[in-house]
Amino acid sequence: MHASPILTRNIEVIAMTSINFDHISANPLLPEVKEAMIAAINHDYHNPSSQHRAGEQAAEALERARESVAKLINAAMPKEIVFTSGGTESINHAIKGVALANAEKGKHIITSNIEHNAVIRSLRRLKAAGFNVTSLSVDGTGRVNPQDIADALSDETVLVSIMHANNETGTLQPVEEIAQICRDRKVIFHTDAVDSVGVLPFDVQKTGIDLLSFASNTFYGPTGVGGLYIRRGTRVFPLLDGGVQENNKRAGTENLIGIIGMGKAAELARRDMESNFAHVKKLKEKFI
Amino acid sequence: MHASPILTRNIEVIAMTSINFDHISANPLLPEVKEAMIAAINHDYHNPSSQHRAGEQAAEALERARESVAKLINAAMPKEIVFTSGGTESINHAIKGVALANAEKGKHIITSNIEHNAVIRSLRRLKAAGFNVTSLSVDGTGRVNPQDIADALSDETVLVSIMHANNETGTLQPVEEIAQICRDRKVIFHTDAVDSVGVLPFDVQKTGIDLLSFASNTFYGPTGVGGLYIRRGTRVFPLLDGGVQENNKRAGTENLIGIIGMGKAAELARRDMESNFAHVKKLKEKFI
Repeated sequence: MHASPILTRNIEVIAMTSINFDHISANPLLPEVKEAMIAAINHDYHNPSSQHRAGEQAAEALERARESVAKLINAAMPKEIVFTSGGTESINHAIKGVALANAEKGKHIITSNIEHNAVIRSLRRLKAAGFNVTSLSVDGTGRVNPQDIADALSDETVLVSIMHANNETGTLQPVEEIAQICRDRKVIFHTDAVDSVGVLPFDVQKTGIDLLSFASNTFYGPTGVGGLYIRRGTRVFPLLDGGVQENNKRAGTENLIGIIGMGKAAELARRDMESNFAHVKKLKEKFI
Repeated sequence: MHASPILTRNIEVIAMTSINFDHISANPLLPEVKEAMIAAINHDYHNPSSQHRAGEQAAEALERARESVAKLINAAMPKEIVFTSGGTESINHAIKGVALANAEKGKHIITSNIEHNAVIRSLRRLKAAGFNVTSLSVDGTGRVNPQDIADALSDETVLVSIMHANNETGTLQPVEEIAQICRDRKVIFHTDAVDSVGVLPFDVQKTGIDLLSFASNTFYGPTGVGGLYIRRGTRVFPLLDGGVQENNKRAGTENLIGIIGMGKAAELARRDMESNFAHVKKLKEKFI
């Protein structure tokens, strides 16, 4: 099912350099995703939190989508998936939520100098609130050196946030090694995988990360829908406070139509992971 | 166009007491909203932030929806509308965004003791971060006394947040008087109108409020889509940091399909405001 790390890396370097310059947010919807969303619109789902039968049907559709997304990243259980309004919300939730929930332990965060805006600006917001951020440089191949992370960790460190794949440079970060270092030091590790989940295989159990941000439209689902994987037991505050939706981790009535589209897209992404690789590789060769 | 305050209040007391117990989030989509969303799905819109023609078309659709929503609440200009993932996000954005952006002025907030969970829990989060919250009691008719707000205001007060309409008690709060008091004291005033915008007329210019939270599904648009009105010049931080979407007030690629549904629903709500009143009143009589 999952390609070996080496194979993945090779394909990725080939695949992700320059093809889809407007990559993250301009992917078209897959025909099956459109069908699923149109069926959801015509189904007249009620609120998944309602107690009556129509509410139960909505809750079932929501949980089917959650199972599909959980399988895509091999989460141990579906309830580790929180549906969000997209990659940006997932990243804000992860970074701000961990920082605020663990501020009593310390106010130090480690990141790299090649992160996306949602990471950079969430951290800038935390800096203004008194957090210290160490931003590590990457090496000649665009990679963060895990040893640099080990060296930067202190008793005050509450979070390490390093992206998974950079869609401009095509570089994959050594997230498994970083996760192991963080785990040994009991520091929470978040990965922004908005560019890669659904395109490249990602196994949250195998990599051992604590939080993973991703977005539906990376894998041809709708825009404005995303997911945040939160490993069971990870200390993180909600970004949206209010009702008890999403297992009390994210308040607000869910975007059920979008989530159903994301669930279908995740199912197809998992099925087509290998042939998609081949397709992107071929396109790439054509462009060159 | 807009009913007089007296008329509105009478209709509202009759209409909002007990009819739609699952009111906020179980409203079905209007047929025209379904059509608009299905057309959007089949249109293959690109990212509104893309530079090419397909992106421009998406940006145009986004701005049409924004204009429709702006008209519903009579905003002075469409760019005062920020699209969000729903009423809960709008409320979190307003409350936390104002508090954090104005903390240098002071850390005092005034609210009432009949607010919804998203308000209560956003404020609880701020209390844990060192803010002081005055929670005012309501009178025998369920209303906040504007004089109590005037008395509670201090030089440290940065925000007053009082709901517009309570869908359980049917009470409308005197938001126009409260807005005037806040304006005189240069304090920002937010109203949670998730239960009422699209059902009752609301004119942000006439009432003079600074921030208004509302949700698409209150007026038969999709769930997981909402709006936050931010009066031009109001000092508020984004809740979602990252890209420059939504006039730099809310990062993240927009949920275009949902927003197009909300825009259509807003157009119909504005058109049908008066006949909807009559319909709800009739239903109410039937139930009794």
